[in-house]
Amino acid sequence: MITAPENKGAPSVPDDLVTPCLLVDEAVMSRNIERMRQQADKLGVMLRPHLKTTKSVDIARRVLAEGIGPATVSTLAEAEVFAAAGVRDILYAVGIAPAKLQRVIELRRGGCDLTVILDSPEQAEAVARASRDGGQVIPALIEIDCDGHRGGIGPSDPALAEIGRQLHHDGAELRGVMAHAGESYRAETRDAQAAFSEAERQAVVSAAEVLRQAGLPCPVLSVGSTPTALAARELGGITELRAGVYVFFDLFMTGIGVCEMSDIALSVLTRVIGHQYDRGRIVIDAGWMALSRDRGTANQSVDQGYGVVCDEAGRPFPDLIVIEANQEHGVVGSRSGDGALPDLPIGTRLRILPNHACATAAQHARYEVLASRSGTGRQTWERFAGW
Amino acid sequence: MITAPENKGAPSVPDDLVTPCLLVDEAVMSRNIERMRQQADKLGVMLRPHLKTTKSVDIARRVLAEGIGPATVSTLAEAEVFAAAGVRDILYAVGIAPAKLQRVIELRRGGCDLTVILDSPEQAEAVARASRDGGQVIPALIEIDCDGHRGGIGPSDPALAEIGRQLHHDGAELRGVMAHAGESYRAETRDAQAAFSEAERQAVVSAAEVLRQAGLPCPVLSVGSTPTALAARELGGITELRAGVYVFFDLFMTGIGVCEMSDIALSVLTRVIGHQYDRGRIVIDAGWMALSRDRGTANQSVDQGYGVVCDEAGRPFPDLIVIEANQEHGVVGSRSGDGALPDLPIGTRLRILPNHACATAAQHARYEVLASRSGTGRQTWERFAGW
Repeated sequence: MITAPENKGAPSVPDDLVTPCLLVDEAVMSRNIERMRQQADKLGVMLRPHLKTTKSVDIARRVLAEGIGPATVSTLAEAEVFAAAGVRDILYAVGIAPAKLQRVIELRRGGCDLTVILDSPEQAEAVARASRDGGQVIPALIEIDCDGHRGGIGPSDPALAEIGRQLHHDGAELRGVMAHAGESYRAETRDAQAAFSEAERQAVVSAAEVLRQAGLPCPVLSVGSTPTALAARELGGITELRAGVYVFFDLFMTGIGVCEMSDIALSVLTRVIGHQYDRGRIVIDAGWMALSRDRGTANQSVDQGYGVVCDEAGRPFPDLIVIEANQEHGVVGSRSGDGALPDLPIGTRLRILPNHACATAAQHARYEVLASRSGTGRQTWERFAGW
Repeated sequence: MITAPENKGAPSVPDDLVTPCLLVDEAVMSRNIERMRQQADKLGVMLRPHLKTTKSVDIARRVLAEGIGPATVSTLAEAEVFAAAGVRDILYAVGIAPAKLQRVIELRRGGCDLTVILDSPEQAEAVARASRDGGQVIPALIEIDCDGHRGGIGPSDPALAEIGRQLHHDGAELRGVMAHAGESYRAETRDAQAAFSEAERQAVVSAAEVLRQAGLPCPVLSVGSTPTALAARELGGITELRAGVYVFFDLFMTGIGVCEMSDIALSVLTRVIGHQYDRGRIVIDAGWMALSRDRGTANQSVDQGYGVVCDEAGRPFPDLIVIEANQEHGVVGSRSGDGALPDLPIGTRLRILPNHACATAAQHARYEVLASRSGTGRQTWERFAGW
């Protein structure tokens, strides 16, 4: 029989939780938040945390400076919820669709300094027009492509100055430039991540130079992703740093060396509901509905299946992962396939560490909090979703 | 420029929908529901639709006979919602965890004939004990493994009669046996699907024979999955048929020939938010948060990426799929990689057909209904989640 290593002092998991459910270890999360705060301080830039991973007002209050921002979001629904909760400075970091500008105007009228991003003259024209029509000057950052990952234009694209002029002269506000080195998620060493950070920095600094040469303002230079933020050596010229998944971390981040497995603050609590020991399988009540379909570690050097299996106290079992996931069934087996499984009777509670915190958290409506101080009682943080 | 084929008469998509959102074509859904109803009639078995795909009271009323059952669910949350909405006969088709039996008893006390499933003496003992302690005879089906897919015991396993005796003599109710040929999802021809159906039937009939030989009752013989249900040629000895995804269908089912693409009732409405024509990419505001991370077609003969791209009226563009998905960004490109993309200006609305209806629907809190009759006004059906 395989047993998990000792780990005394871990917060206890309340007995009455319905499985599957989502657990957050508050002490681990607080440590992660502090780590990024110190990194931003060291680099001398403002931290603008991304709230898309956590989507929780309770967590935003812990992540944001004084609880009011600056913040980054990925949907207008997030902007609306956080603005209603008192966040006053929000960057909506997904290319703006013109049909969404009315909601942007409403948020700004409500007193939230909401900034949009864009990368085309069509969008700039729409933002300028909406600003004039709505009597609200909408600030925009131009998205710069630093690694071919997603959206954005290159710093040498002639459209850059054109977009800048449209925003600046036609009624909107050219607030600056931003980039996101999404490809850094494929960088498996700290040096490679630092190189992506430098590419992110250079792309944004070059783009700002182009705009300034054209006589345009560019006060904000925004960069970031969790890997580049933590690997960055210097961010000369940059004004703000964005990152999100660091609050929870996950197996994907562990796989590229950004964190240790013990830094993962998020897990799914589940129960054993069946055995097929002869086939090396233990069935649990967490399938992909609870874990998500994310298989982000599949292409990393260690494939973690649908997640690493821990005991109830959060101690990983050596070599034990979720090897298959149906909608409401997970199948636990050994990573190496040799079938040496621990004795886990029906009803045993386990915890599964997620491949991708954003995806796993999105499958749940709340966080069950493992409180850092004993005796603080049962605590639940609501999570929201939608657009 | 590539244009989509003509498709006159499709229901129109309301102008004011926030993107991304989930659309259901009511006429297509109704046709799918009717197809399975006729199939069950032809086979002479009772249909027990699985409600885990749709998780909607509005849709359950359309799927269930007289709106009250019989039904199948995958979580006790589903059982609770549907029981509160008047469904009176529910099979909870995931192996029971003893800690969940109190909720089962509460549901039964409320007048819902809820049945559980199990495949071990430990579970049978727990169900028998809960029945005695709770003063509620809990009915159970024994799960039979017919294809090594998930849970269940083989019909020749000596534990079968042991479990049957425990249930029958110790205070619970042995109601019968059930199997689910999940491996039929890998069967790409109708003959192969029919063979899985026959294996499902034989496993359950043999198991019932074992129980009856042991002097035990076995009134219910339950089988099903969408592929086996639709391919079944005869179901001698079987009393009920379960299936769920047929209500919407999806690209996975299209890939194994169970339906046509035009039978898919579910799609995600999205808008174009950027272009990188030089790289053969169009960026949309539906990423994996709206589409799900499901890549079920990846191992089929045609890999549909994160979904097939259609115009606003639901007409598929030849060769156009979602080739990448970030959290809130999708990237549209050609399946063949040759880069011939249609001209789709910023703001253009598109519809994405899902790989897996259960997974995509789970990312949303409601269905926007494309009504089968014009002039019926805007209609929304709520969806729920959780455990």
